[in-house]
Amino acid sequence: MASVDVGIALLGYGTVGSAVNRLLVEGGDEIERATGHRLRVVRALVRDPAKQRGFGAADGVLTTDFAAVRDDPEVDVVAEVMGGLDPAGEYVLELLRAGKSVVTANKQLVARRGAELFATASAAGVQLRFEASVCAAIPVVKVLRESLVVSNVHRVIGIVNGTTNFMLSRMERGGSYEEALEEAQRLGYAEADPTDDVSGADAAAKMAILATVAYGSRVTLDEVERQGIEEVEPSLVSAAADLGMVVRLVGIATLADDKVDVRVQPALVDKAHSLAAVDGAFNAVMLQGDAIREITLEGPGAGGIETASAVVADLVSVVGTTGTGFLQNDACWRELERLPPGEWRSPFYVHLDVADRPGVLAHVTSRLAAHDVSVAQLVQRLGDGDARIELVLHEAPLQSVTAALAEIAALPEVLRIPFLLPVITERPL
Amino acid sequence: MASVDVGIALLGYGTVGSAVNRLLVEGGDEIERATGHRLRVVRALVRDPAKQRGFGAADGVLTTDFAAVRDDPEVDVVAEVMGGLDPAGEYVLELLRAGKSVVTANKQLVARRGAELFATASAAGVQLRFEASVCAAIPVVKVLRESLVVSNVHRVIGIVNGTTNFMLSRMERGGSYEEALEEAQRLGYAEADPTDDVSGADAAAKMAILATVAYGSRVTLDEVERQGIEEVEPSLVSAAADLGMVVRLVGIATLADDKVDVRVQPALVDKAHSLAAVDGAFNAVMLQGDAIREITLEGPGAGGIETASAVVADLVSVVGTTGTGFLQNDACWRELERLPPGEWRSPFYVHLDVADRPGVLAHVTSRLAAHDVSVAQLVQRLGDGDARIELVLHEAPLQSVTAALAEIAALPEVLRIPFLLPVITERPL
Repeated sequence: MASVDVGIALLGYGTVGSAVNRLLVEGGDEIERATGHRLRVVRALVRDPAKQRGFGAADGVLTTDFAAVRDDPEVDVVAEVMGGLDPAGEYVLELLRAGKSVVTANKQLVARRGAELFATASAAGVQLRFEASVCAAIPVVKVLRESLVVSNVHRVIGIVNGTTNFMLSRMERGGSYEEALEEAQRLGYAEADPTDDVSGADAAAKMAILATVAYGSRVTLDEVERQGIEEVEPSLVSAAADLGMVVRLVGIATLADDKVDVRVQPALVDKAHSLAAVDGAFNAVMLQGDAIREITLEGPGAGGIETASAVVADLVSVVGTTGTGFLQNDACWRELERLPPGEWRSPFYVHLDVADRPGVLAHVTSRLAAHDVSVAQLVQRLGDGDARIELVLHEAPLQSVTAALAEIAALPEVLRIPFLLPVITERPL
Repeated sequence: MASVDVGIALLGYGTVGSAVNRLLVEGGDEIERATGHRLRVVRALVRDPAKQRGFGAADGVLTTDFAAVRDDPEVDVVAEVMGGLDPAGEYVLELLRAGKSVVTANKQLVARRGAELFATASAAGVQLRFEASVCAAIPVVKVLRESLVVSNVHRVIGIVNGTTNFMLSRMERGGSYEEALEEAQRLGYAEADPTDDVSGADAAAKMAILATVAYGSRVTLDEVERQGIEEVEPSLVSAAADLGMVVRLVGIATLADDKVDVRVQPALVDKAHSLAAVDGAFNAVMLQGDAIREITLEGPGAGGIETASAVVADLVSVVGTTGTGFLQNDACWRELERLPPGEWRSPFYVHLDVADRPGVLAHVTSRLAAHDVSVAQLVQRLGDGDARIELVLHEAPLQSVTAALAEIAALPEVLRIPFLLPVITERPL
């Protein structure tokens, strides 16, 4: 086999960057068998070359000078593993313009500046790959783009944030949101400032990228409807359990009538559904389409070596497909409208706190019926002079459910604002 | 985009073949965006051109003459979707020699004659792809070869036969093996002659292919240890349920000390394990490796359109990578030894029927201890003068467990030959 050296540069040499170098060194034979090439890290951009690294770079590789990376003729492909929007975004643009293919693990960058980045890559005739930006080692981008090319995927449902999945799983065994967060922080699943995870922002960036790839139309981060888990209370978790369900932060990207809806929010997931079985900090993405029914990919959605594994897979794909016209750049080829949020359809769970007086239940059910919303399950539990009504509604447009709930909330017997969450079941409700 | 016609021939135009044609026609735009090429079926080999087809071929495409396919200069790539070993094997060899790349959905062919087929493809400088031969639309071959290239996968655990998965799931809700089989046949999940499925032969062929791809060393069908589900009784299913487990037909391919073990047999799977949640006739494959921990792919493992989807994905990959050296042919690059079966390690479940006399339990546990086999769980249930002992053993070499059981079986109080099955749990036992 003719072995040709391909020069790799890394932007960033932290946990992920040093793991990429280690995998390229230790997996050199495998990569050469797959591509005919030996990939070697020739440059790595760092802030402090003196810092100790997990897997050291060869002498002379570390540099603090971006221009030295960009202008090095030995560099063929660059892996951006520094994170952040600035200066990573400008660096990637400059590299693409300089004719270097780029692999990035940076979901914020892809979800916010994708249009510009992919246009630049196309103009320069180089590749921009981003498998590692979504769910680390889970190869969902490659599967969507290459394996499911004719599958007409119309729904993507994902548990794409391990921190919140761990926390919500933890709450099932009892305890408050605060206790779950503390344990997640202690075990290293949550950052000291957990906002990005618990607010759904991290999941929203991943869902924006997945929806873009699945539907061929750009979805940016700010187009994702988003609700975090900060207000999930133990009472909701136990109410879900009573219904045979669990609470999970779920991303849902829907293509309906050539319109796109992407949202991240807590949902009730049927315990028999395979997304409910996703363990602790793992991620899972379910792809539903015409020819495939549904395919689910599950695995570790974060971690240094796991992310590095996806970066290396992208490097291998870049090297393996250079010179062909195969699936290399922007997944977007059309501009689809957003689905008006009220038209989004789902089964829903509704929680009502009401005074225990005659006629309340009749009023609730008649208001729902007036909006053509039909009830799959209803549980009323009496408290001390009040009552809790829990409903699972058959699939209906969000706007019909919210209109019925507004009328229900106007009744004096309704003690608090009702709330609703989508429901995910194995079989349609 | 420069659109170039690529001529496709189909060997066979039944359920899968006509679905391939339909997907190529209806997905033509998607494929052209992915590859720059338009794929068109120009020939299809059939036995009876007059037969009605699901999605008809264009005029003049159907032929009964293999030479007309092989010698047609318009044919660039061929999809073999006729099944069977003969004449499919000779046809594929001839096509490869004639310089046509081939995509096959034929697991028996790949599992039995892989070495010869891949050597022929390599010699001719053409591609041979086989995604559809394993678990239909689940893209496990592409993921193993392209996404996990540096992941050192060392264990593949799969539920790779939908018929038996449906039947064993069905038996959990009560009923005998025969009733489950009858229902599977009625719903179209099992053939009139179910031998290939229930004996584990179908699963063994898939596991042989997966092990070959995962470990880079040829595993043929007859090297797979195999036990079917014909002897699974309702009592085993309920004993498993008592232990919080389900019975499933599981394929396990292990790489240990550079030796390979591949087996298909009924196993007890912990209900908390994601393989236990695989629904009805679906398939799932779990890949465990160094950099990825574990990645699980789940989806429909059979079906005409699902298989066709994988065939089209392979056609797209062939067209997309032609002219590169990227991952096109034989996954084998080394010859690994088989692991002696006795050295295979697993946690095990053991069932004993014994006379209810003093000292039996002590004898059982002392014989296990003498062979360094340690007990994780033990349940003894009294019957009418006899007793049933159920054990879950910590991970141990198969030969230690069988040696201990041979000594246990020699005791006159042991009423029947003990039996053992592997156990699959989320966390190591």
